[in-house]
Amino acid sequence: MVNAHVVRLAKRPVGLPADTDFAIVAQNIPSPEDGGFVVETLFVSVDPAMRTWISGEDTYRDPVNPGDAIPALAIGRVIQSRHTRFPIGAVVRGPFGVASHAMSAGAGVTLIPDGPAEMIPHHLGVLGISGLSGWFGLTEIGQVRAGDTVLISGAAGAVGSAAGQVAQIAGARVVGVAGGEEKCAWARETFGFDAMIDHRAPDFAAQIGAALPTGADIVFDNVGGRFLDTALANLAPRARIVICGGISQYNSAARQGPANYLSLVVKRASMAGFLVHDFADRFPDALRRLSAWHAQGRLIGAVDVIAGLEAFPRALAGLFEGINRGKLLLAPNAKDGTR
Amino acid sequence: MVNAHVVRLAKRPVGLPADTDFAIVAQNIPSPEDGGFVVETLFVSVDPAMRTWISGEDTYRDPVNPGDAIPALAIGRVIQSRHTRFPIGAVVRGPFGVASHAMSAGAGVTLIPDGPAEMIPHHLGVLGISGLSGWFGLTEIGQVRAGDTVLISGAAGAVGSAAGQVAQIAGARVVGVAGGEEKCAWARETFGFDAMIDHRAPDFAAQIGAALPTGADIVFDNVGGRFLDTALANLAPRARIVICGGISQYNSAARQGPANYLSLVVKRASMAGFLVHDFADRFPDALRRLSAWHAQGRLIGAVDVIAGLEAFPRALAGLFEGINRGKLLLAPNAKDGTR
Repeated sequence: MVNAHVVRLAKRPVGLPADTDFAIVAQNIPSPEDGGFVVETLFVSVDPAMRTWISGEDTYRDPVNPGDAIPALAIGRVIQSRHTRFPIGAVVRGPFGVASHAMSAGAGVTLIPDGPAEMIPHHLGVLGISGLSGWFGLTEIGQVRAGDTVLISGAAGAVGSAAGQVAQIAGARVVGVAGGEEKCAWARETFGFDAMIDHRAPDFAAQIGAALPTGADIVFDNVGGRFLDTALANLAPRARIVICGGISQYNSAARQGPANYLSLVVKRASMAGFLVHDFADRFPDALRRLSAWHAQGRLIGAVDVIAGLEAFPRALAGLFEGINRGKLLLAPNAKDGTR
Repeated sequence: MVNAHVVRLAKRPVGLPADTDFAIVAQNIPSPEDGGFVVETLFVSVDPAMRTWISGEDTYRDPVNPGDAIPALAIGRVIQSRHTRFPIGAVVRGPFGVASHAMSAGAGVTLIPDGPAEMIPHHLGVLGISGLSGWFGLTEIGQVRAGDTVLISGAAGAVGSAAGQVAQIAGARVVGVAGGEEKCAWARETFGFDAMIDHRAPDFAAQIGAALPTGADIVFDNVGGRFLDTALANLAPRARIVICGGISQYNSAARQGPANYLSLVVKRASMAGFLVHDFADRFPDALRRLSAWHAQGRLIGAVDVIAGLEAFPRALAGLFEGINRGKLLLAPNAKDGTR
């Protein structure tokens, strides 16, 4: 038996999630039966989409209701096992939730390949859903081609930084947007983007216009709001706008649509959303590419780890405040961390 | 020499265009030289897009400035000619503007095929740009397939009624939206749409939901605003939203974007604009199809003619008030008309 701790939704947040919206509940996990195993969680993926799940709105998955455990993709080490594919000691990725430990029968679980310990968290980042979202968003939805100019919001974040690097590998010029001069400098340095623009700058729109003299061929958007309207005002003919998310809108009850959407007509442009899980049958091929670039040092994974299960509400809220550089992870059983 | 009258922009309208925003100016048209001809205008196409041209904003064509003649597609009868392809008596369609007469050297001018007089106005409607917009919007941008459910705004108007009929010919189910119960009944009767919903009804959103139990596969939008948000809340997976125009927004300085645009992600949907002139090299093929259906009575053209050049401001404003049923035309030299 394992004494686990699990984060549950206490009540639906209003605006930015707060500590009091969640509860940490102790839970005993019995020893696994045949075909089951127990993991100790190493890293939990903290994602903007979680804010929409807990809001009760209609999304691509069942809403999380008060009293429910918070679902999350996570990486754990198997500590008890009666499952042949996932023996004790194996490092695995699966839907283990925001918890110190989890029991599983193997559904949706994959083995993390052997490798140095510092590689492990990247399997929730640039070698996980974030990298895959960048790859499929840019290649399938954006149809990126060499010579394109790609404008990316949240370019210092997990998905944006992956998308930007995939675009550069594909021969495109990348103009990234992030919040704050220091973060912009960090992203330019870390990922080598052609330009980084601070959306907090008073002349943000003018800077975007100057960086895109012939407009953006592709816009990859995780943010929405003012960014998306500025992007719509700076499209190249036949531009493709890839809507990956809209982090500026998730905490807001009264959402703001892109007032400049009629640019789609003038520029013969398109705006399309996607869910990366629709491409699940092609994940192995995409991961083969991403892993090779990662090994070659052409695709940089940045991870930002927060220690302690109790830090989850702060981590989730922090995503919307832009605290993270790269992929934000929670290390629920760690006592010290980078923050 | 011909004594012509031409409508010019006097000043940029604020909100709905008014009489005082325009001026009728007398102008002498000299006898044509070699390669030229003069038409007496029979019908002028009155289009929502004119409102954007005269606003001075950045569109797909040069803005119309105060003092400029109002450009328009029109049909005229040649009354003087030194052009071999366009002899006296020929009925021609071309960029003749909002005027009683016009001179031309033939650029952008096409001959209207011989036929009964009542056929002539349809060449500015269902056999003109309106019909072509419906055809290319639905087939190229919307990729309509038999069995699709298609939601169409402005379904009693020129483009919407053409789009709806093309969709039905292609084997789709059509739910149309228009303003007012009477107009809805007229459109259902005239065009045979499967359903017509009055956007002025207090339970408009509920009616849309009931008419689209599995969502819309295609949305063809000429209106924007509340219609577009309601449509976004009622998409089928992988829906295609075709943005043809946004008539609810053209008179407004503070434009409203679709707050529900993140449905594009959840539904893996896309929203694309288009300009029908990009398909100009395929107009002959499309017109062959539209003409055959029109001759067979499967594609109904409705035209709504307003008499007198001085009625132009009222006609243009009327488009935004929804006065028209079908294609709104101005007959600048007529003294009586349907209105």
